[in-house]
Amino acid sequence: MSVDHETLPLSIRDLQRTREPLERATALPQAAFTDPRVLDWEVEHVFMGGWIGVGHADQVRERGDYLMVEIGRESVFVVADDDGVPHAFLNTCRHRGARIVQEPEGRLPRVQCPYHAWSYGFDGSLRSAPHTDEIEGFDPQCYGLRSVRVAVVEGIVMIDLSGTAPAPDDHVGDMAPALARYRLDGLRRAQRIVYSVDANWKAIAENYSECLHCPGVHPELNQLSHYLSGETLSGAGAWCGGSMTLRDGAATMGRDGGHTRPPIDGLTEEDQRSVVYYLLFPNTLISLHPDYVMLHTLWPRAFNRTEVVCEWFFEPATMQAPDFDPSDAVGFWDQVNREDWHVCEITQKGMASRGFEPGRYTSEEFDVHEFDVMVADRYMEALAGAVEVGS
Amino acid sequence: MSVDHETLPLSIRDLQRTREPLERATALPQAAFTDPRVLDWEVEHVFMGGWIGVGHADQVRERGDYLMVEIGRESVFVVADDDGVPHAFLNTCRHRGARIVQEPEGRLPRVQCPYHAWSYGFDGSLRSAPHTDEIEGFDPQCYGLRSVRVAVVEGIVMIDLSGTAPAPDDHVGDMAPALARYRLDGLRRAQRIVYSVDANWKAIAENYSECLHCPGVHPELNQLSHYLSGETLSGAGAWCGGSMTLRDGAATMGRDGGHTRPPIDGLTEEDQRSVVYYLLFPNTLISLHPDYVMLHTLWPRAFNRTEVVCEWFFEPATMQAPDFDPSDAVGFWDQVNREDWHVCEITQKGMASRGFEPGRYTSEEFDVHEFDVMVADRYMEALAGAVEVGS
Amino acid sequence: MSVDHETLPLSIRDLQRTREPLERATALPQAAFTDPRVLDWEVEHVFMGGWIGVGHADQVRERGDYLMVEIGRESVFVVADDDGVPHAFLNTCRHRGARIVQEPEGRLPRVQCPYHAWSYGFDGSLRSAPHTDEIEGFDPQCYGLRSVRVAVVEGIVMIDLSGTAPAPDDHVGDMAPALARYRLDGLRRAQRIVYSVDANWKAIAENYSECLHCPGVHPELNQLSHYLSGETLSGAGAWCGGSMTLRDGAATMGRDGGHTRPPIDGLTEEDQRSVVYYLLFPNTLISLHPDYVMLHTLWPRAFNRTEVVCEWFFEPATMQAPDFDPSDAVGFWDQVNREDWHVCEITQKGMASRGFEPGRYTSEEFDVHEFDVMVADRYMEALAGAVEVGS
Repeated sequence: MSVDHETLPLSIRDLQRTREPLERATALPQAAFTDPRVLDWEVEHVFMGGWIGVGHADQVRERGDYLMVEIGRESVFVVADDDGVPHAFLNTCRHRGARIVQEPEGRLPRVQCPYHAWSYGFDGSLRSAPHTDEIEGFDPQCYGLRSVRVAVVEGIVMIDLSGTAPAPDDHVGDMAPALARYRLDGLRRAQRIVYSVDANWKAIAENYSECLHCPGVHPELNQLSHYLSGETLSGAGAWCGGSMTLRDGAATMGRDGGHTRPPIDGLTEEDQRSVVYYLLFPNTLISLHPDYVMLHTLWPRAFNRTEVVCEWFFEPATMQAPDFDPSDAVGFWDQVNREDWHVCEITQKGMASRGFEPGRYTSEEFDVHEFDVMVADRYMEALAGAVEVGS
Repeated sequence: MSVDHETLPLSIRDLQRTREPLERATALPQAAFTDPRVLDWEVEHVFMGGWIGVGHADQVRERGDYLMVEIGRESVFVVADDDGVPHAFLNTCRHRGARIVQEPEGRLPRVQCPYHAWSYGFDGSLRSAPHTDEIEGFDPQCYGLRSVRVAVVEGIVMIDLSGTAPAPDDHVGDMAPALARYRLDGLRRAQRIVYSVDANWKAIAENYSECLHCPGVHPELNQLSHYLSGETLSGAGAWCGGSMTLRDGAATMGRDGGHTRPPIDGLTEEDQRSVVYYLLFPNTLISLHPDYVMLHTLWPRAFNRTEVVCEWFFEPATMQAPDFDPSDAVGFWDQVNREDWHVCEITQKGMASRGFEPGRYTSEEFDVHEFDVMVADRYMEALAGAVEVGS
Repeated sequence: MSVDHETLPLSIRDLQRTREPLERATALPQAAFTDPRVLDWEVEHVFMGGWIGVGHADQVRERGDYLMVEIGRESVFVVADDDGVPHAFLNTCRHRGARIVQEPEGRLPRVQCPYHAWSYGFDGSLRSAPHTDEIEGFDPQCYGLRSVRVAVVEGIVMIDLSGTAPAPDDHVGDMAPALARYRLDGLRRAQRIVYSVDANWKAIAENYSECLHCPGVHPELNQLSHYLSGETLSGAGAWCGGSMTLRDGAATMGRDGGHTRPPIDGLTEEDQRSVVYYLLFPNTLISLHPDYVMLHTLWPRAFNRTEVVCEWFFEPATMQAPDFDPSDAVGFWDQVNREDWHVCEITQKGMASRGFEPGRYTSEEFDVHEFDVMVADRYMEALAGAVEVGS
């Protein structure tokens, strides 16, 4: 039996019940939310085992621009070289191991360790390591920063710590044209808020995937788009999603119905009456509005704690307007976010009970089920592989 | 060998030394206070394995009144129905598992999950689950809240998560008449203070069970009742206790000797000159004063941390007096409580030493020994059962 | 195989690579810094297995003066008796286990437990235990405080919890004459600052052992003594160290070059132009300046957290001067300390990466290597012993 199986305390039978069609399916097993071993497995095999979203191209556009993320005990930074091409590296100096960059983002004049001043090129190659001349067999070519696979697809910056995931375009799949239509790659960021949520990352993803809770939890949102409106979307790629229709009188999601900004250039009439919610597996939530895009990235910190980075992106031309003010959109979603974190947190607590049994889906939780199936599939692959190895 | 034995790192020989008569006995083994596995076992087998006190009837008197407690990863709430009859349930919605109530107490207009609005009767039956019509085999009768056994004895609200403990009256036993004499069931709460104490719950129970420490730790208390005064009480039921005699000039435990309130109606002359301290196993401390009752409930959070809820109850008629002021009693005991928590905390720290060996009892620690024997008995039952299973 | 080996997840081959001469050596294995089991082993076998520094003689000079330290779950206090002779004891009362003293230092009128008032002589013997007359077989002679081996060498107070370490003079070895020349035993403390550092204790010891990082991290220090100045020191005893030369115009390490105090009496011309840095294994850093001595003691709290106590000592005559002001020295080193903790903390984080491999030493890290070899030797002894036991 492989290590994977031993550390993944889930039964194939339970997972098969989740993979049934919605009408017959049962939610993910309790341990998926409450057992630290499942989280450890997910960090290693889901978050380090394929593409994850780490941010937006706007943060790594110019020479030395970087963003840094932490996943498990790893830290990775993505930095733009002289030509604005992003490179990703493990954030660990090859001398004594100090972290090269400390902040979640910024601009570096050069890639230099703050401890003993070892310096590296934007391609990771070791450029300077003082007082190593007399060290035997010290070949600077062997002491470059360790590279991490990186890709930018329609403005979404992704890394693959495994180095072996399928092509990034296949990961994004049929979602890409929508991102292109909303010109995501060219948008600029106006705001960034980081939340610490006492809930499993999947509880947050599930919460994002349905609006059945909106009338009770988000009356202000339900006022702008009815919770039963819109359609489910499907297509190739590791994502699920759906649209909601803006009510008459609402121009976007924002306080006061948001009539203050022009729509993103080139959107269809239907786009301008909709908000489209995509979940790019596993950790990236992309919410397309007529006049802006909101991006959540989820960072598991424990089986019951997740850091959520939320960012808002607008057209450069819109942001340059002298009266540009994103506060209606940011304030609206900040409130909705906090309402969501609360219900995620009380769900996390309630699921810990020994009396808890995974429930049934309602008809309005189609995307929740689709997300859960993606998760269950990953677990199944590991368990099936383990059985094979063990047999 | 059963799981119980494997997770209870205690030796029968050590426990037998605790169960000797006081003059020959040795205190509980170190691991009982410093090993997280013992605490885990206690939460599961002592706190979830029989009756525990959760509060007072005054909190669940009227329709929708509830109180909520947490023990281990469980949360249970007790709520009064239309007739004022209390029902207890696991605090976990049957849909996605959210906690139904969040606060330690309050009043509910109805029992409704705040996430997706599933609603339940005060008897726990599922009343409404929107968008489940098309779900196959979804029988609402199977999705009621999970019931927990509940009882109210002389005003003390108790739950039994095992569902198999002996009758609640047998648990309270011969202590009941005293509680009745102090009319505990009809008293009203005036104040509630919650403490977080960095000590094992048993160290707090032991501290409550002797006044040998009073001259040094509580000079203000020793001034109102001499630490060697009073008598030990005994009788049927899972409790230990004793009285102390008020000194001349002291009317109750309170700042300035507490001459401000009439005694509880119907108390004897002796009652009016005494304070009686009961410990109802495992977690309920009931202190009967001439004019009020103080209730502590102990909530283990870790082997070295306990949450203590302390409440003060008075006669309704006393509380209705325009000049009613409980601050002398509350302030007095709040100070004594904090002095006790301090010595419990330094004992918890000191017991962690590898050089620590359980000490001998002194002649003034009779009730400490009696409590320790109750604890040792529970351990012994588990170990004896394990030996039987294993042999 | 012994418990030691099982709990020390290190390979002999890796440790042998550290013990090579500097030019061919590789730094300590990753697990030495990031595995909690190594820290647990170190606490038990390094910190409790031989001499550690606990403070300075100035804190235990007069009757009842005490200092208290915590290591792992142990607490030890050193207290001076009527003749000013220091005794050390486990800080645990023999009755119910309460800690006798709570503060890191102070003066005791007598040794008395604050819980039930058991009292002990300064030699640890039980003097009073109320209400034990009727306890069978209770012999007060068997209930004295548990002694710990203590020694004072040239003003450094040390304890040996194992009781079996070689003579304290052998531990200090050839470093003693230097401490004597700086009259360390007779100096008085002017200031004490405690830091909590999120790094392994060895990362802090390594940081102390080289100044290669000074130009980048401590420009203010590099301005007073060039990072390549001075010499490495060697000799018998469990220490490593080296000197640095003060630049022209600098009288000591201090803000504004420190010209405010006379040198310590009897120092050589060379002493007055130098700062000498000693690391007494495992946890004591002694920095000899022309006019004062700085003492760091390191207290591991977790694999990635260390408490550091930093103290500054001056000549009594100097301190009695009406215009005595240590703030230039204290302020200077407080800033340097904080700069050091920062780089230690980012190193601790970076070393946690799975992509981290121990690096090579540079030619300027001679003392780092010497310290690492002392550590590797301890590991090797345990692993060799385990192999022997196991074979």
